[in-house]
Amino acid sequence: MFTRVSNKQAPHPLDPLRPEEVQSASRTLLKHVGCPAEELRFKVIDLAEPAKVQTLQHLRRKAPVPDRKARVYYHLKGSQSLLIAIVNISKSRVEKETEAPDSQGPVDWHEFELVNKACNDHPEVQAEVAKLNLPRNARVHNDPWAFGTDDPNERRRLFQCYMYIALSDDPEANHYSLPIPLAPIFDAHTLELVELQRLPMGTGDELDPETQPWEPVIPVEYSANIMGDDAFRKDLKPLQVVQPEGPSFQIFGRRVEWQKWSFQLGWTLREGPVLHDVQYDSRPLFYRVSMSEMTVPYGDPRSPYHRKQAFDLGDSGFGLTSNSLSLGCDCLGHIAYFSGVRVTRDGEPVVMPNVVCMHEIDDGIGWKHTNFRNFKSSVVRNRQLVIQCTATVANYEYILAFVLDQAANIHIEVRATGIVSTMPIRQGLQVPWGTVVAPGVLAVNHQHIFCARVDANLDGDEKNTIAYDECHPVIEDPEIDPYGCAFKVNSTAINKPGGYELDITKNRTYKIINESRINSVSGKPHGYKLHPVPSQMLMMGPKTFNYRRGIFTSKAIWVTKYNDDELWASGEFTNQSREDTGLAIWSSRKENVKNEDVVLWHSFGVTHVTRPEDFPVMPVEKFTMSLKPANFFEVNPSNDVPRSDQSQNKSTLHIVPQETCCRPSHL
Amino acid sequence: MFTRVSNKQAPHPLDPLRPEEVQSASRTLLKHVGCPAEELRFKVIDLAEPAKVQTLQHLRRKAPVPDRKARVYYHLKGSQSLLIAIVNISKSRVEKETEAPDSQGPVDWHEFELVNKACNDHPEVQAEVAKLNLPRNARVHNDPWAFGTDDPNERRRLFQCYMYIALSDDPEANHYSLPIPLAPIFDAHTLELVELQRLPMGTGDELDPETQPWEPVIPVEYSANIMGDDAFRKDLKPLQVVQPEGPSFQIFGRRVEWQKWSFQLGWTLREGPVLHDVQYDSRPLFYRVSMSEMTVPYGDPRSPYHRKQAFDLGDSGFGLTSNSLSLGCDCLGHIAYFSGVRVTRDGEPVVMPNVVCMHEIDDGIGWKHTNFRNFKSSVVRNRQLVIQCTATVANYEYILAFVLDQAANIHIEVRATGIVSTMPIRQGLQVPWGTVVAPGVLAVNHQHIFCARVDANLDGDEKNTIAYDECHPVIEDPEIDPYGCAFKVNSTAINKPGGYELDITKNRTYKIINESRINSVSGKPHGYKLHPVPSQMLMMGPKTFNYRRGIFTSKAIWVTKYNDDELWASGEFTNQSREDTGLAIWSSRKENVKNEDVVLWHSFGVTHVTRPEDFPVMPVEKFTMSLKPANFFEVNPSNDVPRSDQSQNKSTLHIVPQETCCRPSHL
Repeated sequence: MFTRVSNKQAPHPLDPLRPEEVQSASRTLLKHVGCPAEELRFKVIDLAEPAKVQTLQHLRRKAPVPDRKARVYYHLKGSQSLLIAIVNISKSRVEKETEAPDSQGPVDWHEFELVNKACNDHPEVQAEVAKLNLPRNARVHNDPWAFGTDDPNERRRLFQCYMYIALSDDPEANHYSLPIPLAPIFDAHTLELVELQRLPMGTGDELDPETQPWEPVIPVEYSANIMGDDAFRKDLKPLQVVQPEGPSFQIFGRRVEWQKWSFQLGWTLREGPVLHDVQYDSRPLFYRVSMSEMTVPYGDPRSPYHRKQAFDLGDSGFGLTSNSLSLGCDCLGHIAYFSGVRVTRDGEPVVMPNVVCMHEIDDGIGWKHTNFRNFKSSVVRNRQLVIQCTATVANYEYILAFVLDQAANIHIEVRATGIVSTMPIRQGLQVPWGTVVAPGVLAVNHQHIFCARVDANLDGDEKNTIAYDECHPVIEDPEIDPYGCAFKVNSTAINKPGGYELDITKNRTYKIINESRINSVSGKPHGYKLHPVPSQMLMMGPKTFNYRRGIFTSKAIWVTKYNDDELWASGEFTNQSREDTGLAIWSSRKENVKNEDVVLWHSFGVTHVTRPEDFPVMPVEKFTMSLKPANFFEVNPSNDVPRSDQSQNKSTLHIVPQETCCRPSHL
Repeated sequence: MFTRVSNKQAPHPLDPLRPEEVQSASRTLLKHVGCPAEELRFKVIDLAEPAKVQTLQHLRRKAPVPDRKARVYYHLKGSQSLLIAIVNISKSRVEKETEAPDSQGPVDWHEFELVNKACNDHPEVQAEVAKLNLPRNARVHNDPWAFGTDDPNERRRLFQCYMYIALSDDPEANHYSLPIPLAPIFDAHTLELVELQRLPMGTGDELDPETQPWEPVIPVEYSANIMGDDAFRKDLKPLQVVQPEGPSFQIFGRRVEWQKWSFQLGWTLREGPVLHDVQYDSRPLFYRVSMSEMTVPYGDPRSPYHRKQAFDLGDSGFGLTSNSLSLGCDCLGHIAYFSGVRVTRDGEPVVMPNVVCMHEIDDGIGWKHTNFRNFKSSVVRNRQLVIQCTATVANYEYILAFVLDQAANIHIEVRATGIVSTMPIRQGLQVPWGTVVAPGVLAVNHQHIFCARVDANLDGDEKNTIAYDECHPVIEDPEIDPYGCAFKVNSTAINKPGGYELDITKNRTYKIINESRINSVSGKPHGYKLHPVPSQMLMMGPKTFNYRRGIFTSKAIWVTKYNDDELWASGEFTNQSREDTGLAIWSSRKENVKNEDVVLWHSFGVTHVTRPEDFPVMPVEKFTMSLKPANFFEVNPSNDVPRSDQSQNKSTLHIVPQETCCRPSHL
């Protein structure tokens, strides 16, 4: 399945790096730096996208293929400085080399493993663990967490290792059900124990004078092996999806065509799947659609929990942490998979098989009308194309999907699942900061705030405008509205960058419009409107690190003027960041964004007040934002979908067997 | 399929009336009134539910089956007075007889057809139509609309007949694409033309001095026959759902059991499907869950549009207007159908076959976790049970579904589709009240506001409390929150009936809790929380008829103390109503609702700013409210769902054929 093929065709400029390109980039950099391979440690090698203007000229056949380039994060051995290189793979040369001494790069698997091992092996940690008097079969685990920020002068690269035990050898034994009150801090460069922090077990932040023996408790498990057959419901019957004539999509390299849609399926270590050059019926819609960032601040003020604030794209990466998917689990039906590549510390490419899946689903009725005069009905089903990945960031899972439909809508869907971050608490106690979800297990309340980035080029024009419509009643104007029922739509074009708010009370609706193209039927400009996810924004105030590290969390809508490389809402380096170097800067520039190359960002999420029902693994919470055409087409784009029909659908009729019922289900 | 069966088993007290019961009710009433059948005109015969206390006593085996009773709306010939009878079917006697001289009953098919015909046949209407100089093949149609209210003294039963033409004999020729500027008003009792109202064609409310010849225009069609084969996309491949071992549900009469859920599937002419006695794992959750009302005010102040405000449950009925469904159209997979019954004007029952469908669907991943240490993954798919109906209210369709899942969530989903209400407009013009969606066709902006009713009995106790939680930051308390990250959940129990608001900025979450049952893990009361649909509420002010006829539209949340027969948010009779006789009264009673038998109502909807993409038939807009357990279970209720598995799912792998691609889809 993953055999290398001859590579006669040049990649699309926005294709992810291929394994051989990753290797070429690392070799070019090694050669350039001139030091032996073991003196250099690679963290990230990912596509450095060509400038938009260059890409578009190429796609319009006015310019040759732009050079393939890689963005490389690396360290020289013994140095803590993060180095960044832009390597021109096509020309085998390093184009740019910079040092980011005041930034921490994202977590890489190599250092993660080193820190994990350092913690498990450290004699002081082991001595402290010994005080717990754990049962013999206990396995001790730790999850190294990005340290967070509470000291503007901290410059070390730190991990806080939250510790747990497992009481079974089962590979899925749920250690998150058995947290222990230890959270040592390690320096990732020196692997030194910085502090053996202990955790409060009571209601306040005071610690026990000494680590106390562990109070035995039965863990809540999700492992089917541990639970045993009897624990499962028996009456779930198989449900299968078949496509006897194959799928409706076609794949050409990483170009996907489906039901008038076409797009280039990109992928980065940071963002996971990215849609480039999205078109409908050969009309350009979006230059790039992506998940840009996600942050999770926790609401427990007790140290060290006040520092818990992961940026799961910037600190870890939805691509890097993506699961390799397999048939029968993450999708149902006929599935296409796409792979990714990461790099080892030595610069070798590692293929990450099947990190993105793609398949069609049926989402019920797409539209329907029955003529009541004769009961003649037309029904169209809502077939959708789902492009999906699952990112496992330690305890937690994010399932990110782009969903296209036949009415020319595009949806960005996030399912939050996995295991909530758990902390120990003495049995029988409660704290105001969260919920006890299992005996001795506190799940602290937290927020997840996502930021999606939408770079539109409606009808292929780089000049677009973001406007919002509001519905306002026409009040007290008996001349035109004697009965007080009238309301009007007021439209406001946004002309300066910034953060903007939703206002449901006015039905405020943000739209991307192309002012130079007018719909011939309605007389209104071509547009796509955003159906947002109305959410509580960050509760932490502007002085907090929580806020300052990611201001995208403070407003639902952000508008910026396009610049190359401005892709990530909180800036390039979020790990232990002190200030947002993304939207905080880009949204405060004094420049026109009306009828310009403009980018729309939408922040949304959830304030998660935890409940026992979220444990051991949390049922998905689903958030869906949509972009829907508004005056972009002259007619329902799905009017041309073949009508739903039993000869194609082959549904089956349920007959209630006589022996199981007293009378049929029908009246 | 609809053979009558021997009826040995008594119906469940909340089962819909059977055809023989409808007949029995009409005969009993006729006998009681003592007039010949032709002197009495039946409008509605529907179940009169027994008192809750009586039903519960019976279900708890402490009382015999309550008598079966019917609520009957009827007229005596020649009288305009609406009469209401409660007929005890079991005892063949009339228990209650009242007159509602100041109320209009819902529309019935018989009068609808009479009005429709009166309009089409009326010489004055025909004379006015003649002025349009329509082409020979034009068929003239009218849609009789419930008149609405603008005059508190109006007592006649009126219909406004909006008129259209069709230019083809096709049964699905889209007359809504060809509105004509005539809207005669008829009296439904006398069938007299009350006023031959004409419609404005310009931007203001002034009329042409005389009806002008019709300006030819090509209609926008959705009929597959008219469109022709070439108009359709060709690349949609079949997608089928198969359940080789049958469905996971079982049906006993109208009792449904599925995946630990059980409920009694009710149905009324007014509401369509209703879920009664909903239990999970034999624990009672809800006594009754239903869609209670829906109203659509239009925002165009020009007469007669200012009166357009349908109450599609109270005026028409989601049950009465429900489509008879068939395999291959409204559901996909293995489908069970349930039927309904209506009554003719003569009191004869008419079975409405297959007005409710039920089937299982796969909604993607239900939960997932991967242990990053060994990549071992557990995935559970999100199987759902969908109970659905489609109501066609003239031009428009509502698809109402109750959706249950394995995590003990219940969702109420509405899909709005069908054809927007269209009015004529002179070609080339625009008005501020809507969008031109086709040449000469104005679709006025409007709101749809729904109200769902949730009568919970968590754990079988009739005493529950509705409370709301809010998340508030702990501001400026350096003692406990030195870094400003802390937030708390403040809970407020509602103790008096009334309308309440959502507040997303505080993550305000309404919950139904049972204060007498405490979760043994979390120490918090058993509860179900509402995930609402945040929506703009009614724009029309408190003085307007729009508001006064349905105050449920003004706030998202309503809380009332339970009383039998208080089921419908705007009261029993909405047609031409002047005042709300439902929540307006029930929510203003001075009584305690804390730890009482309490009902939660949720109002939600959409402000529909129309677009050409909504025409000819509108792609579904989907709204989903959910009720999810919160401290009701001690663990994720779907932890016992068998893990997703290729041996059951039988998905297939997509291989990119060599001839259609330059390289495989994999890197």
